[in-house]
Amino acid sequence: MSNIGDNTSENSDLQNDRGLHYGDGLFETIAVKSGIAEYLESHINRLSKGCKRLKLINIDFLYLKNQLEQKAKTIHKGVIKIIVTRGSGGRGYATPDNMSATILILEYPWPDYSDDLWNKGVSIKKCDIVLSTQPLLAGLKHLNRLENVMARMELENSDFQEGVLCDSEQNVIEATSSNIFIVKNDEIITPKLDNCGVSGVMREQIIEKLRITGSLVHVKDIQYKELLDADEIFLSNSVISIWPVARLNERIYSVFSVTKKIMSLLNN
Amino acid sequence: MSNIGDNTSENSDLQNDRGLHYGDGLFETIAVKSGIAEYLESHINRLSKGCKRLKLINIDFLYLKNQLEQKAKTIHKGVIKIIVTRGSGGRGYATPDNMSATILILEYPWPDYSDDLWNKGVSIKKCDIVLSTQPLLAGLKHLNRLENVMARMELENSDFQEGVLCDSEQNVIEATSSNIFIVKNDEIITPKLDNCGVSGVMREQIIEKLRITGSLVHVKDIQYKELLDADEIFLSNSVISIWPVARLNERIYSVFSVTKKIMSLLNN
Repeated sequence: MSNIGDNTSENSDLQNDRGLHYGDGLFETIAVKSGIAEYLESHINRLSKGCKRLKLINIDFLYLKNQLEQKAKTIHKGVIKIIVTRGSGGRGYATPDNMSATILILEYPWPDYSDDLWNKGVSIKKCDIVLSTQPLLAGLKHLNRLENVMARMELENSDFQEGVLCDSEQNVIEATSSNIFIVKNDEIITPKLDNCGVSGVMREQIIEKLRITGSLVHVKDIQYKELLDADEIFLSNSVISIWPVARLNERIYSVFSVTKKIMSLLNN
Repeated sequence: MSNIGDNTSENSDLQNDRGLHYGDGLFETIAVKSGIAEYLESHINRLSKGCKRLKLINIDFLYLKNQLEQKAKTIHKGVIKIIVTRGSGGRGYATPDNMSATILILEYPWPDYSDDLWNKGVSIKKCDIVLSTQPLLAGLKHLNRLENVMARMELENSDFQEGVLCDSEQNVIEATSSNIFIVKNDEIITPKLDNCGVSGVMREQIIEKLRITGSLVHVKDIQYKELLDADEIFLSNSVISIWPVARLNERIYSVFSVTKKIMSLLNN
């Protein structure tokens, strides 16, 4: 049904894979701690939704979930990345009949981030690149990520950990590899992702965990200037969980009280 | 400097390649006839321009050109595809230091198109998908091609050979895997590609060959309704050269005189 490979297996036909040729696929990045793949159910759900949107069929998600659980058991602390592509074969955009999805399960070491990024917060800047609008692909963690790559290059040789990405209307969408939240007068807001951006698993967890405690996260358009007016800003993704933002370009943020509360909430 | 592989070589590290993970690279599709890679200089030029735009450095284009010439000599009639990526390594969008580009040279058989497609023309339809606007990547034949893949799916189980792609302003940009030209009152027009679309090597050849014979191709915005009002429409890419359009959705075109003249011009 699908070919599952890992770091050690041979994938001799990857050079004909539609993932490489067209970015025709999706990925997930999963934190593993003490042998447990965190939020695995949510990752599998998002992947499954993405496959439906891309019409990438015939993937046995139950089997995949089991494979990931087994893989995670061998890891004390690390990162698993899953890449799912439409498979290998053919030249041209048309999908050949009887394609068999390619599934790669890759293991990476835990990144060596300083504790200060969680304790004192990160520095971010607004990127020059403007995200394009494509509702058909919005929210998906697909393999067409040149915009993020080009955005990340804007941070090279700087002390900024992440960049803020906006659309052509100056709506904030996300950061280079994380989602973004703002706190203003105790209201917690995160951007809508109907036209671009990746709908992060950690973003969903934050919204859900706050909902359970009776707090509403407002999902709506945020203009860039609202970031500068915000009381607090924080970033989220599956590996970092939450990073408070201490600086956006020249603007300094020194209050992290709501952010720290949400950080503790996630750790419980 | 860069790793050059082909269909037969092992590329065991492709599973960590940024081409697969992010579509972080470019490609070229080259027609080979009687051992000659057609318009090779133009393909290398476009690739080189694309690499500059993506800041993909340290590629020896002279060596690559020589490799392609040698490869072409072994092919009577076929297609060579070059894929160039930023290389292998790391997790995350940041480019690791000392990356070495991956270069794949892949050989494919000549597609078995019927002669009727050139003689009687092709049927095309307007695709529902709307191309997104990204000036930073516009014109490049980069590896982020999910829009084209999704557009091509709209043609499945139909008798349409190609689909017409427009931007959100109803400007015609291109067809699913070719560029588009219209003829109206003997004026030849092709869309601007400043915001999206691929600037095809054959499109450039047509513009240049017509210029030499004293005919100007007008490169400007074309609204979708102008396609319906056109006297003739034709498509171009490096493999098909030129296909006259005989039908766009319900609209039938029966005059191909300017198109056929340009087809002969290219064959001389």
